[in-house]
Amino acid sequence: MNETAANHLVLFMPSGKRGRFPKGTPVLEAARELGVYVESVCGGRATCGRCQVVVQEGKFAKHGIESRADHISPKGPKEERYERVRGLPEDRRLSCSATIEGDLVIDVPQDTIINAQVVRKDADTRVIERDPAVRMCYVEVEEPDMEKPLGDLDRLIAALERDWGLNGLTADCWLLPQVQSILRKGEWKVTAAIYRDRPEAAPRLIALYPGLKNEAYGIACDIGSTTIAMHLSSLLSGRTLASSGTSNPQIRFGEDLMSRVSYVMMNPDGREAMTKAVRQAVNDLVDKVCKSGGIERADILDSVFVGNPIMHHLFLGIDPTELGGAPFALAVSGAVCLPSSDIGIDLNPGARTYMLPCIAGHVGADAAAVTLSEGPHRQEEMMLIVDVGTNAEIVLGNWSRCVAASSPTGPAFEGAEISCGQRAAPGAIERVRIDPETLEPRYRVIGIEEWSDQDGFSKIAEKLGVSGVCGSGIIEVVAEMYLAGIISEDGVINGALAERSPRIVAEGRTFSYVLKETVPRLTITQNDIRAIQLAKAALYAGIKLLMDKQGIDTVDRISLAGAFGSFIDPMYAMVLGLVPDCDLEKVKAVGNAAGAGARMALLNRNHRREIEETVRRIEKIETALEPKFQEHFVSAMALPNKHDAFPNLAGVVTLPERSADRPERDIEGGEGPRRRGGRRGRR
Amino acid sequence: MNETAANHLVLFMPSGKRGRFPKGTPVLEAARELGVYVESVCGGRATCGRCQVVVQEGKFAKHGIESRADHISPKGPKEERYERVRGLPEDRRLSCSATIEGDLVIDVPQDTIINAQVVRKDADTRVIERDPAVRMCYVEVEEPDMEKPLGDLDRLIAALERDWGLNGLTADCWLLPQVQSILRKGEWKVTAAIYRDRPEAAPRLIALYPGLKNEAYGIACDIGSTTIAMHLSSLLSGRTLASSGTSNPQIRFGEDLMSRVSYVMMNPDGREAMTKAVRQAVNDLVDKVCKSGGIERADILDSVFVGNPIMHHLFLGIDPTELGGAPFALAVSGAVCLPSSDIGIDLNPGARTYMLPCIAGHVGADAAAVTLSEGPHRQEEMMLIVDVGTNAEIVLGNWSRCVAASSPTGPAFEGAEISCGQRAAPGAIERVRIDPETLEPRYRVIGIEEWSDQDGFSKIAEKLGVSGVCGSGIIEVVAEMYLAGIISEDGVINGALAERSPRIVAEGRTFSYVLKETVPRLTITQNDIRAIQLAKAALYAGIKLLMDKQGIDTVDRISLAGAFGSFIDPMYAMVLGLVPDCDLEKVKAVGNAAGAGARMALLNRNHRREIEETVRRIEKIETALEPKFQEHFVSAMALPNKHDAFPNLAGVVTLPERSADRPERDIEGGEGPRRRGGRRGRR
Repeated sequence: MNETAANHLVLFMPSGKRGRFPKGTPVLEAARELGVYVESVCGGRATCGRCQVVVQEGKFAKHGIESRADHISPKGPKEERYERVRGLPEDRRLSCSATIEGDLVIDVPQDTIINAQVVRKDADTRVIERDPAVRMCYVEVEEPDMEKPLGDLDRLIAALERDWGLNGLTADCWLLPQVQSILRKGEWKVTAAIYRDRPEAAPRLIALYPGLKNEAYGIACDIGSTTIAMHLSSLLSGRTLASSGTSNPQIRFGEDLMSRVSYVMMNPDGREAMTKAVRQAVNDLVDKVCKSGGIERADILDSVFVGNPIMHHLFLGIDPTELGGAPFALAVSGAVCLPSSDIGIDLNPGARTYMLPCIAGHVGADAAAVTLSEGPHRQEEMMLIVDVGTNAEIVLGNWSRCVAASSPTGPAFEGAEISCGQRAAPGAIERVRIDPETLEPRYRVIGIEEWSDQDGFSKIAEKLGVSGVCGSGIIEVVAEMYLAGIISEDGVINGALAERSPRIVAEGRTFSYVLKETVPRLTITQNDIRAIQLAKAALYAGIKLLMDKQGIDTVDRISLAGAFGSFIDPMYAMVLGLVPDCDLEKVKAVGNAAGAGARMALLNRNHRREIEETVRRIEKIETALEPKFQEHFVSAMALPNKHDAFPNLAGVVTLPERSADRPERDIEGGEGPRRRGGRRGRR
Repeated sequence: MNETAANHLVLFMPSGKRGRFPKGTPVLEAARELGVYVESVCGGRATCGRCQVVVQEGKFAKHGIESRADHISPKGPKEERYERVRGLPEDRRLSCSATIEGDLVIDVPQDTIINAQVVRKDADTRVIERDPAVRMCYVEVEEPDMEKPLGDLDRLIAALERDWGLNGLTADCWLLPQVQSILRKGEWKVTAAIYRDRPEAAPRLIALYPGLKNEAYGIACDIGSTTIAMHLSSLLSGRTLASSGTSNPQIRFGEDLMSRVSYVMMNPDGREAMTKAVRQAVNDLVDKVCKSGGIERADILDSVFVGNPIMHHLFLGIDPTELGGAPFALAVSGAVCLPSSDIGIDLNPGARTYMLPCIAGHVGADAAAVTLSEGPHRQEEMMLIVDVGTNAEIVLGNWSRCVAASSPTGPAFEGAEISCGQRAAPGAIERVRIDPETLEPRYRVIGIEEWSDQDGFSKIAEKLGVSGVCGSGIIEVVAEMYLAGIISEDGVINGALAERSPRIVAEGRTFSYVLKETVPRLTITQNDIRAIQLAKAALYAGIKLLMDKQGIDTVDRISLAGAFGSFIDPMYAMVLGLVPDCDLEKVKAVGNAAGAGARMALLNRNHRREIEETVRRIEKIETALEPKFQEHFVSAMALPNKHDAFPNLAGVVTLPERSADRPERDIEGGEGPRRRGGRRGRR
């Protein structure tokens, strides 16, 4: 660019990218030159309205820019027509029509992404800067000419190259039989959907619409072993139109991951049946989000899927048997990018599917998505990410180094292997408080607003039925039993308390705690406590191993991901020693962070490169190969009994001291222990 | 390369590429640096034997090279082992093991392509320099490692990048479910099929085999409206293993192209039915060539298809309706490259299909293939290529300029619209001679070696049945009638001759010539003559138009392509004025040149670029838009009567003079007119 001509400074927010441009340059053109993503479908015809920006006014001392109303061109006839016909908010301008007339600060609006959590997580708002892999490009195509007998598709490609600079463009072959009728239906005006997973890749024509098509959608989907969650987003505005979830139908082949792998090994058609089941469930979910979002499935042009390695493999039609035993070899660990129709996902016939990379044989694309969402690699603070399922997937690191491992926690945290355990569902106890004086419990049940000792509870409970204790309830009841002195730091139920309370009962040679006396009677047995101890020791040992690798004793932040992480109270997690000490303010339940990461990859292709690069850099620790794992595991069996190991619990809760028969307890404010994590209101 | 170190001159033949290399450089490496295509599957392990070359010995004054036995390294242990185990012809060396020790002339053997013509054309030999789009790459892959949990596919890709320099390699997603079992079956040694349609394109892993896979095959197929012809070739040696043909089953929907388009227009499922029919026929042909070649269809990794625009569209599943009327818009004119499975062709699941570009709405990928095969753009001589079917496709040009058109000849040349016409098949008269004295005919019939006046003919003819006259027979009988003075240059049958010969009979107001008196009686009517005149005038007018465009009066060479061109006698074509005057030695029947062009594109990807570029440069003439076409057409109705317009016929045949009642006739040597075109023996 000519230095003397390029005399106006333009700053784009929120990216902060800036450059100098000659007077009269359209704002859209300046954005493109700087690599600022501003959507535009109509290609500067001022008809699609996608390229709206906000011109900020005033001095911006920090940036040395004075942006004033007369620094931007007044609205011309095209922009005025758009305003008249389609309406334009007062502060908005069409960047294809508005030209630079002086120094400017331009706001590129980033419509907020509404994170309507499916898996029982409240709405959360997150802004993702957009740069989707799919762009919509409106063009006017030359009509056929006998003297220059180029094919219709060839003329369309020539027009796209000319108007949109799409050099080396090729077309999906499924379009070949369609292109003539679409061009004629649109009277040689069409909108092309161009797929370019990375800016330097050859562009690909994946769909074609007659006339101006001003929308395109994508789905982000997290395939969990239990639950499949899906979000439908506009690729152009970033807005989430609908979210929905369903249980993974593979459950009928096996409750947990390893039983599904066994099923494949035992049944010749097992892999195929499970692949079919999960794809069908995904297709059904697509139906659901489309209906709820009021769109056609053919309008969906891109999709991102994440899942643990076994879900990832089964979804792709890969036999997961190798993942069932050492060396836990993934068929493919890198990101996978393919036509959605190749894996039987029924979207637009040209839609693409992107799957995030897997980190290791036990640390899947879901963990990669959580990492992308939480971004330890983007920050200086040392962040611990824990995603608890049958295996806990653990990532620990910051911008300079990340390590990852999985730990075999088993399904206890999910309520399995617990005598009164059940899945989180209406009727399950999810919160527990035990009075340290009387040892009487009170609890809260999924589906009932009131606590068990409040008015109105019994009436609803009778109808609903209180059937068991879910994962978060088990954590709380064990932690409360510890805080109430019912169990020692070794996890032994103190039988002597049977004298003081009918809640403590002998069962064979050990004792149990009766949480609910009425039918069905719910008790916490000594075996239940042991199961939780084993699970939490495995988790903590894995975390400790990674802390060893990083050479640290404490972490700056903890993100608890997944359904389990969403409902667990961070304080109780720390009381039980599931996670290391950390400022409770910095322990966050991040809900379906895997889904959030998937959406980031859906709405901005650069996030795909970011996570691919991050996963390449993550050091993978195989706990089974680490001699110290066993040692950490054994010492993590005990419950924490010292505030010097957990200084952040001081002032929140008083841990029982060794051999203290009747512990003091000091909980700050409110009913029961202070709750953190920003989550309010539960259905 | 270091100038002082690079002191040995190496010349590769037949490409003529040369360069200087340091002593000790493997010959294969030198070839690669110079871009000389030498196959190698094992990657220099001296196990595949694909990289054989011949070291020429002696002084090569022209090249300034003295190549001697001691200029190449002696056989090392690896090469000796190969020789012992697999055998090596005396003059051959493995270029991966043999190193440069002095100046060398190296012959890269180009196994000849055996052109076993399907459509009744004798074997023809043609050498195609190979550089196929598919390469076979043997690699040894690292085993899974829990500490570096890269996926199996990722380790395979890393090995291919390392050993074969395949940067940016991606894999077909159909391989994902297969990769683990193939790697284990091959004990981490596998051969990867890499597809790269152009050298600069990102390489793609399309198939994978356990262990060393030392072969890969491809098919080249010409889809004619009447006949489908297919060749099966080794992509590694270039050898043609099998050729076969079948009739196009679309015939049941319409004999000629336009009736098939009409069928689509009249029947909602017409397009689909015809697409299905032709794909089924292609799949059946694949079966046939595989059986005959002794290979599995899964061993076929690449395929090239050509056809006229309507065949091209129907094969790709595109509605050809637009091709049925002006402006004859092709859906796609450029080359098409897609997975074969996308169009239902059952080869290896990763196989690719390449279709040559179409030149215009009436000049298809078959004409492009003929052009590629005959190569007017590669030579200085002005070459006329004529491919006669329902439309004649005509290309005229040389290296500096090519023009193309199609001319609506109608089906008369194929025996349709002729009272006694029939398709070329056993029992059809294909050669005719008329005695100018007696006006008695003699003829030859497809399926009978003898002429009709020779011993043994009657006996076979009785069994076989002589049922009609095929295209080449019609040309000959009309030309012979003209030479015998039975018809005038205006094409009128001279009724006065009825007095002299019972062969001339009145039929209504016109006369006919009785070619065969016995049942079924075969006569050439005045209408038949008119049909041939119309067809030949259309053809000649198209040719003349292109000659006008080129500003020339004569052409240097004529290639007559296609089934019709294969059997027509060039002399008779010239006597009738189908083609302009040309040295008869330079008029060639080139048989299925479309199939030959397809094979060139199959065996050397550079030919794909060559024809794409050529087609882009070809100027397309639409005869319907040219005012002079009609004028040329009218004046081409007459039969040539002057040797000054056809000087090359002088000395071969004496044309009747205007109004000459009993022409002199002078034919050089042998039985009947001298025959050209190199074709011998007919089934």
